[in-house]
Amino acid sequence: MAVFDTTEHSHRRYNPLTGEWLLVSPHRSKRPWQGQQEEPEAETRPAYDPTCYLCPGNTRAGGAVNPSYDSTFVFDNDFAALQADVPQGTVNVGGLLRAEAESGVARVICFSPRHDLTLPEMEPAAIRRVVDVWVEQYQELGARPDINYVQIFENKGFMMGCSNPHPHGQIWAQRTVPADPAKETVQQAAYFQEHGRSLLLDYVALELQEQTRLVYQNEHFVTLVPYWATWPFETLLLPRRHVTSIEQLTDAEKDSFAAALHDLTIRYDNLFRISFPYSAGLHQRPTDGQAHESWHLHLHFYPPLLRSATVRKFMVGYEMLANPQRDITPEWAAERLRGLPTVHYKQAAA
Amino acid sequence: MAVFDTTEHSHRRYNPLTGEWLLVSPHRSKRPWQGQQEEPEAETRPAYDPTCYLCPGNTRAGGAVNPSYDSTFVFDNDFAALQADVPQGTVNVGGLLRAEAESGVARVICFSPRHDLTLPEMEPAAIRRVVDVWVEQYQELGARPDINYVQIFENKGFMMGCSNPHPHGQIWAQRTVPADPAKETVQQAAYFQEHGRSLLLDYVALELQEQTRLVYQNEHFVTLVPYWATWPFETLLLPRRHVTSIEQLTDAEKDSFAAALHDLTIRYDNLFRISFPYSAGLHQRPTDGQAHESWHLHLHFYPPLLRSATVRKFMVGYEMLANPQRDITPEWAAERLRGLPTVHYKQAAA
Ligand SMILES: O=P(O)(O)O[C@H]1O[C@H](CO)[C@@H](O)[C@H](O)[C@H]1O
Ligand SMILES: O=P(O)(O)O[C@H]1O[C@H](CO)[C@@H](O)[C@H](O)[C@H]1O
Repeated sequence: MAVFDTTEHSHRRYNPLTGEWLLVSPHRSKRPWQGQQEEPEAETRPAYDPTCYLCPGNTRAGGAVNPSYDSTFVFDNDFAALQADVPQGTVNVGGLLRAEAESGVARVICFSPRHDLTLPEMEPAAIRRVVDVWVEQYQELGARPDINYVQIFENKGFMMGCSNPHPHGQIWAQRTVPADPAKETVQQAAYFQEHGRSLLLDYVALELQEQTRLVYQNEHFVTLVPYWATWPFETLLLPRRHVTSIEQLTDAEKDSFAAALHDLTIRYDNLFRISFPYSAGLHQRPTDGQAHESWHLHLHFYPPLLRSATVRKFMVGYEMLANPQRDITPEWAAERLRGLPTVHYKQAAA
Repeated sequence: MAVFDTTEHSHRRYNPLTGEWLLVSPHRSKRPWQGQQEEPEAETRPAYDPTCYLCPGNTRAGGAVNPSYDSTFVFDNDFAALQADVPQGTVNVGGLLRAEAESGVARVICFSPRHDLTLPEMEPAAIRRVVDVWVEQYQELGARPDINYVQIFENKGFMMGCSNPHPHGQIWAQRTVPADPAKETVQQAAYFQEHGRSLLLDYVALELQEQTRLVYQNEHFVTLVPYWATWPFETLLLPRRHVTSIEQLTDAEKDSFAAALHDLTIRYDNLFRISFPYSAGLHQRPTDGQAHESWHLHLHFYPPLLRSATVRKFMVGYEMLANPQRDITPEWAAERLRGLPTVHYKQAAA
């Protein structure tokens, strides 16, 4: 009988950050695809769109007028999923119908005044300004006694439920720690307690040895496809030095972070030569007043595409009801991303 | 200050089946939608399609020829995500790179020879035959020593990654218990140990009292929108008598199950007057040889649509990185489903 081979045989992989398992079916990528094809998005947009509610000087749905900003711009979401002034209260019927009021803040961050850009098309210096806004927001919101977790994220592309192509991200900050960061808190704390070291720093050291899942590295940051990646081209960006939150990064580290973001988003666009859709988000220390020494800052990228610009991975049926599952191996995905040019295809063509 | 009101204020709800929390933002459904619109699927299909690999008598991708079946037909998936003959093996590098071989079986169940039907357009007697096949498959696969969990599910519609509109479901059965049923095992066992009663039976009793989330009931089955529903029109179907798996249902109960399925899928199609997409799946006792007395059979429906035939809920950004979130309340969704006609719109029009 053959020897177990993760490039050929179905297997489970463990995600030490969440404590959950993933099903990997490497051979399955051979199946033909006759299902839904995504509509590629229009590739050309004007630098300014008078109908865009994020462009400088325009009026938003709520009636507010945007300033004539020239780098980034942050405002409270006009249709916030979290409200600051929710009256406290709970429901509990037999321990089975349980609810509790949840308060918080939702904000929008415009990355650039230019309607036609996205992160990979922005200069590293402009991306660095976005990093600075993330730091400011994390500090300002995190300092509030009613905010115990600050989730900074970006939905890019219509396929990811993003309703406006103007480059922007969001912040949802709230009283309780949401499910995923809560799991990561538990797992990182348990590892730290057992080993006296950071789970993710030990993990980065292993990846720098193995090399097979590395995509990019600079002096302060590493980009890799995690061993337990769920989405086909999922990646993880993390600092090489132990920092629990973005506010601890030095100036040089913030520049390196911007450079890593620039590099990765260009590779993504070059993969299928389209504006590559994804959801991305920072995970970092909850702002509940505890030290959380075991926490290690990182940025997850979850992109939906699988085979081409128009064929995505569907997390449906088995995945929704039983377990996350992937068809190509993380090692194969990393190899593809590593091999891509680091100049944006639009600039290369120009 | 106002009093906490779950129809107005953002809040969290607890899911006792998984032990996880959901963020509910009732006021948020007012936001305008400028994002992606789904393409409605073609509504008319031939009763037989010579190019369909599931129609009777046709040749499949792997070269096998389907029999001329006249009710249901089960075969091994030609591109199975799980293989029975995987060599055993594990990987463990520093406790951080961990994998283990996973074996299993993946099958396809054709619900009907008719290419142009779906569950809501089939007769209850024909749906009953599908229920019988689920029982047979659960028994046959569950009896195997190498199968400890049998996941039976259906992906309906291109939006749910279904690549063929011929009415069919799938089975993925495997050596380990996948994540979601494993969580439900833990939660149901803990409740049973504490109260000496089934969590879901106690829950059904509460819902029959409160009425607000009920959609339908017959002698043996109840359909409701769970208090902790994540998807906009998510529902839960469950038997009123304590049964741990589908094989324990009596003949009369199986007929009632088919009637409940018929009713719900018709309501779904009538909601937006389209063939309503969803992923649905049975959860029941693992087949690992233990009694699992605390388990209660149920069927989850996870449909993606939110506002109309073309506007779906996106589980992206915040949901992927932080916590599941919903915009309309489960009570409002149940009211809408309750109010719908129980004759299929195509038949009503005919
Ligand atoms: O097996 P199918 O129908 O080709 O594939 C579909 O269902 C599977 C099980 O839920 C998913 O893993 C796939 O992403 C989806 O496209
Ligand atoms: O806030 P937006 O961009 O309108 O909405 C988008 O992001 C939110 C946060 O991830 C999701 O809840 C919505 O489903 C999605 O459409």
